[in-house]
Amino acid sequence: MDRIIVAPHAGFCFGVKRAINIAERTSKENKGKRIWSIGPLIHNPQEVERLRKEGVEVLETEENIRPGDTVIIRSHGIPPNKEEEYVSKGLRVVDATCPYVKAVHQAVEKLVAEGYFVVILGEKNHPEVIGTLGYLKKAGGEGVVVETKEDLEKVKHLEKIGIVAQTTQNEQFFKEAVGELALWAKEVKVINTICNATSERQEDVYELAPKVDVMIIVGGKNSGNTRRLYEISRSLNPRSYHVETAQELDPAWFSGAETVGITAGASTPDWIIEEVKKRVEEIIG
Amino acid sequence: MDRIIVAPHAGFCFGVKRAINIAERTSKENKGKRIWSIGPLIHNPQEVERLRKEGVEVLETEENIRPGDTVIIRSHGIPPNKEEEYVSKGLRVVDATCPYVKAVHQAVEKLVAEGYFVVILGEKNHPEVIGTLGYLKKAGGEGVVVETKEDLEKVKHLEKIGIVAQTTQNEQFFKEAVGELALWAKEVKVINTICNATSERQEDVYELAPKVDVMIIVGGKNSGNTRRLYEISRSLNPRSYHVETAQELDPAWFSGAETVGITAGASTPDWIIEEVKKRVEEIIG
Repeated sequence: MDRIIVAPHAGFCFGVKRAINIAERTSKENKGKRIWSIGPLIHNPQEVERLRKEGVEVLETEENIRPGDTVIIRSHGIPPNKEEEYVSKGLRVVDATCPYVKAVHQAVEKLVAEGYFVVILGEKNHPEVIGTLGYLKKAGGEGVVVETKEDLEKVKHLEKIGIVAQTTQNEQFFKEAVGELALWAKEVKVINTICNATSERQEDVYELAPKVDVMIIVGGKNSGNTRRLYEISRSLNPRSYHVETAQELDPAWFSGAETVGITAGASTPDWIIEEVKKRVEEIIG
Repeated sequence: MDRIIVAPHAGFCFGVKRAINIAERTSKENKGKRIWSIGPLIHNPQEVERLRKEGVEVLETEENIRPGDTVIIRSHGIPPNKEEEYVSKGLRVVDATCPYVKAVHQAVEKLVAEGYFVVILGEKNHPEVIGTLGYLKKAGGEGVVVETKEDLEKVKHLEKIGIVAQTTQNEQFFKEAVGELALWAKEVKVINTICNATSERQEDVYELAPKVDVMIIVGGKNSGNTRRLYEISRSLNPRSYHVETAQELDPAWFSGAETVGITAGASTPDWIIEEVKKRVEEIIG
């Protein structure tokens, strides 16, 4: 067994990696032109700053854009009317929406076409869900976002319900909500649009944390999915630590440690994970 | 408040009442002819005996039937090939299948037509489920009966699952099974075929048992749904008693009782409930 083990699914998910690749390619192919990402491509300030240096600015206010500029739709997606608005303003739109999120949009369109009232199991204010609601509206369908058990009450009376989920939906809530709705409604059609990136990261921690002496979780202190990884790790191994960067690592944590596990939230870039790994190597020698 | 309160949903469900009415009408219209019910119309020996006196015998072995006889399909239903077999043997078939059970057959046919692998949440050896499996086979579909959590494992790998339930399925298991399947499969369509007779009877007990001094549950000692009513009642009121007939009532049970609640399992005929009520009236005066 190696002394330092990086979890197999640490860091960026498929959709985020893809969006960053698209942003980098767009930047290379459009040197000197103005390129904006519609909101930060990722919830990681260091990575956003790196992309800014490569020419991809974050669009803070739409007053800044001019015809001929390029805008990049990030992995979360946006409502289709917003995309049409950008095109009509003379912008070049590059779509880096995650294919798993596009699958949610298509599932909603299918359910509307089949006459279902659509329930989106997700967070009301999450950009992905706002985008999905745009596709629901464009398809001429009716639906609501269900975020809590209390929200479920609002759809209790419906007879025919189509269900999709935000790609990062918690599996336990998904199961409970689907079970309840299937019991209340006469007919329910569920298209499971949960992406397994979140559960894969959590399974890694369940696997790795009990086996190592010290466990390091890398990621933004404000990142929900990273904090959750830390909580799971701490419940399995008291010597678990959450850091944003390699600079935060305290040599005292590793006293007597033979093995160290490392994982990272879905918004942590590989280069930060690499820096943490190198610093741990230096400390434990 | 009356001193004796009979629960609003005590006794026979809609489908059983209807089947008995059909049997009685068939008997009146066919005086002197041979009439068989395919299995006992109801799990209550007293009621089966009463019907026998009206001319409806229970068919124990098919060797007993002759062309020209009438056979009554009870509320559970039978497989369609069995029905065709009876017709081809020159029998007159009277269908007393519960309309809620017919709805399960139709749901299965619909799911097969839409390309779903069908999961029937129910008891493998229950006559209703055996009937439903017959409709699945006739429709040319594939499917399985899922009775336990272990059975769920067998359908884990499937991508497109259609789900129906035995009409008397437990709601908790239904919710859990649907939630699990929706998480594993890409697409799940659920047609909720649970009849609310069982839950209505249970809700009556939750409502009534805590309010009365003594609670009497009437029904076969071998009736699963009656025993469940008794268990719920006893958990809410220690002065709960389970009897099959009025003769079992012990005056000592009612010492000092101001109020008595009565309910009955779904296979208990009204006339037995009435006898129990009268006997309680005599005892508490």
